[in-house]
Amino acid sequence: MNRPDHHPDWIAVDWGTTHLRAFAMDATGAVLAEASSDKGMGSLDRAGFEPALSDLITPWLTDAPMPIIACGMVGSRQGWVEAPYASTPCPPLSPDMVHPEVTDARLQVSIIPGILQAAPADVMRGEETQIAGYLALNPGYTGVICLPGTHTKWVEIIAGRITRFQTVMTGDMFAALSQHTVLRHTVQSKGWDEPAFLHALSQTLSQPESLPARLFGLRADHLLNGLTPDAAVSRLSGYLIGCELAATREYWLGQNVALIGDGRLTALYAAALANQGAPAEIADGNTTVIAGLTAAYQSLKGSPQ
Amino acid sequence: MNRPDHHPDWIAVDWGTTHLRAFAMDATGAVLAEASSDKGMGSLDRAGFEPALSDLITPWLTDAPMPIIACGMVGSRQGWVEAPYASTPCPPLSPDMVHPEVTDARLQVSIIPGILQAAPADVMRGEETQIAGYLALNPGYTGVICLPGTHTKWVEIIAGRITRFQTVMTGDMFAALSQHTVLRHTVQSKGWDEPAFLHALSQTLSQPESLPARLFGLRADHLLNGLTPDAAVSRLSGYLIGCELAATREYWLGQNVALIGDGRLTALYAAALANQGAPAEIADGNTTVIAGLTAAYQSLKGSPQ
Repeated sequence: MNRPDHHPDWIAVDWGTTHLRAFAMDATGAVLAEASSDKGMGSLDRAGFEPALSDLITPWLTDAPMPIIACGMVGSRQGWVEAPYASTPCPPLSPDMVHPEVTDARLQVSIIPGILQAAPADVMRGEETQIAGYLALNPGYTGVICLPGTHTKWVEIIAGRITRFQTVMTGDMFAALSQHTVLRHTVQSKGWDEPAFLHALSQTLSQPESLPARLFGLRADHLLNGLTPDAAVSRLSGYLIGCELAATREYWLGQNVALIGDGRLTALYAAALANQGAPAEIADGNTTVIAGLTAAYQSLKGSPQ
Repeated sequence: MNRPDHHPDWIAVDWGTTHLRAFAMDATGAVLAEASSDKGMGSLDRAGFEPALSDLITPWLTDAPMPIIACGMVGSRQGWVEAPYASTPCPPLSPDMVHPEVTDARLQVSIIPGILQAAPADVMRGEETQIAGYLALNPGYTGVICLPGTHTKWVEIIAGRITRFQTVMTGDMFAALSQHTVLRHTVQSKGWDEPAFLHALSQTLSQPESLPARLFGLRADHLLNGLTPDAAVSRLSGYLIGCELAATREYWLGQNVALIGDGRLTALYAAALANQGAPAEIADGNTTVIAGLTAAYQSLKGSPQ
């Protein structure tokens, strides 16, 4: 449904590398309609952003100005306009939103800055909005937020501020290893073997130095012992997440942990953490990004622009 | 020079996944001529092997039968004919060479079997011939042989036998990470920064669990601090080889180590090991494979077929 019953008060936009999603919103943060396209930042040059957005949201516009709040890679150096990083420690939502030039004056676009950590060097862009949304939905939360994905973020929250964070590129590594190494012959499966996942996880969590030696073992076990693709892909996932948990132990051990993301990935991380005696809350990625964009919209309304 | 001054006594063949190399040999193991093509195992179906070989070696044939000794992936299940693995502990050269059917009866082809280790499951095919060559050139060698490459092998040699080995797919991982993850934007360089390599190496060798966290740090250091591609690619290499050395410590610590392979890679591993106080001998990969094929030829001549 692309046409809301009444015109929205504002529009929320989640604009990543590979996707563009827009939501027609009312002032309370309720979603009236949504629309999406594959016009992600990665496929656009600078002049392409405004038309890509207009294509989606024109049905929601009137003659009046429309506040539009966007987060994600749209604010990167290769995006529509660079929204310079805020620096940790800081609240997830920086007040320094940036505003690209537009030809259609109705589009009052604000882009939320990403966040950097100077040392160890690290960056996020988009996740800060989900974090803000989680904190809006769970006021006073103190602990760690983990956002599993291509580049999983582990984020420490104290008193409403991001105090430090760590990116682990487990999803990116999984895709590269399973599609572009000799393991591609061994792990092609949509199936799953939970015991194999958990066993592999515990092996690299307790002996992270063994990861490089174990990977080729999947291929050899396939050749010599008929290892099934289901078990192989589950072990590969377990080895990598086990290493990630070993690398991030100080983030999750004995801490409150909230997992934000899509259902399959957060369930995987929750199972991994539960296996280590570390229960985690799960929050939906879509819900939190909309709550975060809403928080940014409300902060914008509350302050002179 | 494809035509030797006199016809060879036999032909040595190194036939891997991506290449085919043939050497016209005299009985003492001297190379009279060589020829190569890109007709590797990976590009051939079963009927394609004999023509691919004939294309290269026909100038070297007479009407008489010609002994041809081959090693590598030509003997895999997807190869010309499967040469079943010998099982550790065993000498590098199995006497059970296999002989594909040929239409040209002059081609008396023998293929050297690969070697398997039952537990932990591991396999090699091709490296056993280089190991045999190294042992032929260095009689009585006891210690470890490391063959760096796409799938690096660490091999323990005691009393002329392979007692155990470990494959680490460092080269395959390096290629996948540097070409098919977000790091591709950061590590595109033909340059080299040796201090950056050695520092990164020591970091993951002493803290192998930190690898997953350090990888994205290359991207972040590039974005925030202008990390150069030379330093980035050297650090990526150092992180991966450091993890490999942590995983294989029991193979190299306090052992004789010989490195077999191409000059650039063996120099890299030698520098890494020297940095850890573990000096290594270096042997040329080409020389050792020819010495190994010669040892196989001589064993064949010495035994009734």
